[in-house]
Amino acid sequence: MNILLLVAHGSRREESNLEVDSLSKKMLKFNSSQFDKVMPAFLEFASPSIPEAIEKCSEMGAQRVTVLPYFLSAGVHINRDIPDEVNKASQDFPNLEINVTNYFGSREEIAELLMKTAMEK
Amino acid sequence: MNILLLVAHGSRREESNLEVDSLSKKMLKFNSSQFDKVMPAFLEFASPSIPEAIEKCSEMGAQRVTVLPYFLSAGVHINRDIPDEVNKASQDFPNLEINVTNYFGSREEIAELLMKTAMEK
Repeated sequence: MNILLLVAHGSRREESNLEVDSLSKKMLKFNSSQFDKVMPAFLEFASPSIPEAIEKCSEMGAQRVTVLPYFLSAGVHINRDIPDEVNKASQDFPNLEINVTNYFGSREEIAELLMKTAMEK
Repeated sequence: MNILLLVAHGSRREESNLEVDSLSKKMLKFNSSQFDKVMPAFLEFASPSIPEAIEKCSEMGAQRVTVLPYFLSAGVHINRDIPDEVNKASQDFPNLEINVTNYFGSREEIAELLMKTAMEK
């Protein structure tokens, strides 16, 4: 079993966390059966945290976890915090293969999408 | 003249702000001549701030400014901070027509783009 974790920053505002939850559900529509499940996880302010989510994946019998950082820029969360939490989880769950993808903000498509958004006004 | 302001949160990390700068330049490629210029602006930690950028637009002779919030979720920045700064600027520059677009995270395309990112690993 391969589980995709959509990792967002997390907010004190519950609606923002619910947006991430709903996005993780929407992503299933575009799944090519590579992932058995898509689950949200949060760096701060919301649960599950990354370690909690990875523990859950292990309990569910996953062999692989793919961590997808839903962040716009490659700041300290991408360069330090998420790798640190993933490294720790790799030690705690040595049977789990955990990969981290590129962060969302690295997508080439963003410039065009932004211009579309601007032109809709 | 219609100027598009790409408004990002801004970071203490200069590289993150440069990513926004470079994105605003990339957006020009997808411009259908609706905008004469695309400029970055930042809510915090970086310059120009939103008021500084709007003042600059006015000095450059713009009649319209379109504010595009480059944020993933509709938190307090989208619901309060950006509207507050835009309202203030509208009072300071009454001859300028300032519009705010939807925030980036509202795009329907994001779920599919995220799944693409996950599958590239």
